[in-house]
Amino acid sequence: MKLESRLQALRGLMAERNYDALIIPRADEHLGEYIPEHNERLRWVSGFTGSAGMVIVLSGQAAIFVDGRYTVQVRQQVPSDLFQYHHLRDEPPLEWLAQSQAAGTRVAVDPRLHNLQWYRQAQTLLGAAGISLCPDTDNLVDHCWLDRPAPKVEPALLLDESYSGESSSSKRHRIGETLVQSAADAALIFAPDSVSWLLNVRGRDVPCMPVLQSRALLWSDGSLDLFVHPGRVPEGMNSHCGADVRVHPADAADTFLTELGGKRVLADPVTANAWSQLLLEQGGASLVPAADPVLLPKACKNPVEIAGARAAHIRDAVAVINFLVWLDAEQSAGRRHDEATLADQLLAMRSSGRHFQGGSFDTISAAGSNAAMCHYNHNNTVPATLPDNSVYLVDSGGQYIDGTTDITRTVAIGDPGADIRHMFTLVLKGHIALDQARFPKGTTGTHLDVLARQFLWSEGFDYDHGTGHGVGVFLSVHEGPQSISKAWSGVPLQPGMILSNEPGYYRDGAFGIRCENLVTVVEVPGPLETPMYGFDVLTLVPFDRRLLDVSLLTADEIRWLDDYHRLVADTLTPLLEGPEGAWLERATQPLA
Amino acid sequence: MKLESRLQALRGLMAERNYDALIIPRADEHLGEYIPEHNERLRWVSGFTGSAGMVIVLSGQAAIFVDGRYTVQVRQQVPSDLFQYHHLRDEPPLEWLAQSQAAGTRVAVDPRLHNLQWYRQAQTLLGAAGISLCPDTDNLVDHCWLDRPAPKVEPALLLDESYSGESSSSKRHRIGETLVQSAADAALIFAPDSVSWLLNVRGRDVPCMPVLQSRALLWSDGSLDLFVHPGRVPEGMNSHCGADVRVHPADAADTFLTELGGKRVLADPVTANAWSQLLLEQGGASLVPAADPVLLPKACKNPVEIAGARAAHIRDAVAVINFLVWLDAEQSAGRRHDEATLADQLLAMRSSGRHFQGGSFDTISAAGSNAAMCHYNHNNTVPATLPDNSVYLVDSGGQYIDGTTDITRTVAIGDPGADIRHMFTLVLKGHIALDQARFPKGTTGTHLDVLARQFLWSEGFDYDHGTGHGVGVFLSVHEGPQSISKAWSGVPLQPGMILSNEPGYYRDGAFGIRCENLVTVVEVPGPLETPMYGFDVLTLVPFDRRLLDVSLLTADEIRWLDDYHRLVADTLTPLLEGPEGAWLERATQPLA
Repeated sequence: MKLESRLQALRGLMAERNYDALIIPRADEHLGEYIPEHNERLRWVSGFTGSAGMVIVLSGQAAIFVDGRYTVQVRQQVPSDLFQYHHLRDEPPLEWLAQSQAAGTRVAVDPRLHNLQWYRQAQTLLGAAGISLCPDTDNLVDHCWLDRPAPKVEPALLLDESYSGESSSSKRHRIGETLVQSAADAALIFAPDSVSWLLNVRGRDVPCMPVLQSRALLWSDGSLDLFVHPGRVPEGMNSHCGADVRVHPADAADTFLTELGGKRVLADPVTANAWSQLLLEQGGASLVPAADPVLLPKACKNPVEIAGARAAHIRDAVAVINFLVWLDAEQSAGRRHDEATLADQLLAMRSSGRHFQGGSFDTISAAGSNAAMCHYNHNNTVPATLPDNSVYLVDSGGQYIDGTTDITRTVAIGDPGADIRHMFTLVLKGHIALDQARFPKGTTGTHLDVLARQFLWSEGFDYDHGTGHGVGVFLSVHEGPQSISKAWSGVPLQPGMILSNEPGYYRDGAFGIRCENLVTVVEVPGPLETPMYGFDVLTLVPFDRRLLDVSLLTADEIRWLDDYHRLVADTLTPLLEGPEGAWLERATQPLA
Repeated sequence: MKLESRLQALRGLMAERNYDALIIPRADEHLGEYIPEHNERLRWVSGFTGSAGMVIVLSGQAAIFVDGRYTVQVRQQVPSDLFQYHHLRDEPPLEWLAQSQAAGTRVAVDPRLHNLQWYRQAQTLLGAAGISLCPDTDNLVDHCWLDRPAPKVEPALLLDESYSGESSSSKRHRIGETLVQSAADAALIFAPDSVSWLLNVRGRDVPCMPVLQSRALLWSDGSLDLFVHPGRVPEGMNSHCGADVRVHPADAADTFLTELGGKRVLADPVTANAWSQLLLEQGGASLVPAADPVLLPKACKNPVEIAGARAAHIRDAVAVINFLVWLDAEQSAGRRHDEATLADQLLAMRSSGRHFQGGSFDTISAAGSNAAMCHYNHNNTVPATLPDNSVYLVDSGGQYIDGTTDITRTVAIGDPGADIRHMFTLVLKGHIALDQARFPKGTTGTHLDVLARQFLWSEGFDYDHGTGHGVGVFLSVHEGPQSISKAWSGVPLQPGMILSNEPGYYRDGAFGIRCENLVTVVEVPGPLETPMYGFDVLTLVPFDRRLLDVSLLTADEIRWLDDYHRLVADTLTPLLEGPEGAWLERATQPLA
């Protein structure tokens, strides 16, 4: 009933403004993966809590579009009498609109909530069907959402150079210089994590994403105009960033962008919203479409950032090991907890660590067959209790002032049996092959992806997700441009990049397995005829030996596992005592 | 002096027609890899015999552009007082022209000898520098080349359905139907191997490429207009191809293409020449730019073609083994031959085989350090004699009525030593890993390429060429769209495709190694959770066990090699007697 009245309010306003349809994406105006409470417009209108989706409200009906991860969840959360369900990829919303609606239909869209690439595509697709796309930044949902929470506004954190390793001034000047090559006078730096990295600041207003909600214009001389809510500007911001950073209120951005007539402004049509680029065009600026120039420099971490990430991973490992020790003890005592209790316990272990700022994403705490859903979230359903003789999959991470972590371990519950051990070992063999890879300059993640899949493929198995994503340092746990996946990446891997190595295997209705470490790209010591890069591991938590079928491992693989466990033991033994110390000693015993 | 007078004649004609520059590519009007003698215009003007390059003649100077394979050869063949040398990739001809020539310069180009993609790029690049591109199909070289050989014109061969496995009518109708999806009325089928496959005919007029020099227009109803020299049309062509194939003289094509006003004609901007598409546009047809619709159907061989390829590979293996036996005997007798004698001997062995039609490419017969040049051709230099204690690399293939072969074997000469054995074994390990790969639908050659390189990479080595190319059936030994390489291929591997598996290693000035078999993509017998494809080997010649460092091989790799050699022995023992039979028995003894 509550949703029904929300839809009614929206339809009333749509009629008032003469719209036949309204598009509501999940994104907010920063287009990030995580969004603050007050911008959860899709959830408000539909009840759906997934991380991706789109709603289209028409005068007589409404439709929600979600991808394969959420086809079950959407039916549980969104009432079928109010919404039709559609598949986001198989029946894309724009195609659906173009095919189902008559010519002359007027479709309202808030161009602040979409990137330019999508917006142009919408114009073309709907235009071809005679449908008008009506940009409207006076968001209809915001008018109808009467109990909308106030935005969280806290002063940003100024990140000391002992964590960032490079001053904002140095970053801005070296990236500003690259703009000259693109013949651009300035670049729109739209992604909050790009702005945050560039200014060496972090925010506290978005769950899991420690970014300053802001946008900026970086000039080729290295100076920068920052647009940010004044309540987020901390004391000392000016002396921290440098005198050539000019701070403006967030709502001054629109006018500013229309006053750049004659300038050539680089903007990323994928990461920057359509509205900002429409404003630039309106004001007479020339758009230079190109990738956000901060992406690649941010992805290649400097030695100080890598050292920070290493330190954060050691603290994170202590927390995860404490959790695993506790879990084993509870198992031995015959106590089987549910997924929510387990996730809470893990968070509690992390929270006591130095520099901990919160989770880096929503923990996937999945028991038995729930682990077969790669993006399972126990908060969207009744948390399951650990079943006997199966596995528990826990994918979690933390934000620390010096680094971001992301780790998945699969844990034996009772005796998981030969089949699960067989599959776990195939997954681990892939993880080892990727970790050991050496590769020349120019190699991308797509070239290496098969190394992680080959043993599964060889027996007729696969997993339906990428093998690795980029990770920031006290920034987004999912960052580009680096990745390891079947989908073509034209970006070569470079020293300092941090990536996950996370092959898995999922058997519907039965169990799920994933082995995930973070690694950083390093130069292999030479001299070599062809210089090679390789990976150096950051994550330091033992793999569960109870899940191994050692007969499937080669001597090289056994040596890799023993070396890894020795590294874990050498690093963490000084930090763990009593039962935790004893557990670590057992868990890292060599196989050979 | 001879070249000088040729250049003088060209410059006279350029002045007459008011051109400041003339572009001479290596390609002829069919844009194929191999070209007949009478179209060797680049060789005529420069003396250069390489397989790729471009000459630009200016009034006061001339320049030749070749790639890294030919930087040595070009200096031997092309006089430096007449030509500047440039690198085809590092200093591309068009960029060089745009930068070195003044605005107003008039550049003559024969649009029959370039694809449309290149032609458009030339217009843009030169246009931006104020330079005019002047299309001229009255080729200047042809006017000055007084002793130009007459074209070779022989009647085509009609390929029986017992070789092709599918009638021309069936091929034309099923591909015609796909044109409807592209909303095209017809498709320009420009590549001679596409036309030859579509009509089940083969030609004899181009070295190594058994294609009918012709082009065609395929209509969506499956009917076809063929443009071909009347002297190439054999008796019975009409009844062989079907009544809906209309044969026109080759020189009727230009007029025909200008009479398609209002039609939508698919043309491949990469494989079809610019001229044909300019004519279509002139006549009012709409161009639909898309890949040649014959490429993919031709690449996926039917069971009859695969059976033919297998039979051809057995005969080819007999020839290659006879050669290897002879070579070993000559070695034992202390006779060291030169590269030309060896290549001739191998050709003689092949020539006696049933259905043999000629080589499928110029044999690479490379002794010792010459093998370090991946595209070495002994005809371009003084053939070297086999050195002691090294390797001989021979990369060769044959055209047979039922198939096309391409094989590289590296052979021990004397005692090659531990270093060469180590490198050979790393290369062979990569070959084995790729051969054994299993992969799901959607996998492309780029995903698999690393499997062949991983063991070299692991020790700091690599090779600077692709791992595999597509191969036709009694057609081009290099065909697309399938390939296995670092360069991104978006074309998934499909059952019936034939590819080479040819990793290598090259040490400058020392030695070269390559292990090449042809394989075909097959479905792996199930049931499997995820259906998988794999490779089935076509080539059946032992690898040289004297080059192995067995200590580097895993048990799986030893099993692979023993299984392969058992397959070779089982297939070929009945066909080899006396010393050849005894050699085969020794060469295929199991390692384990």
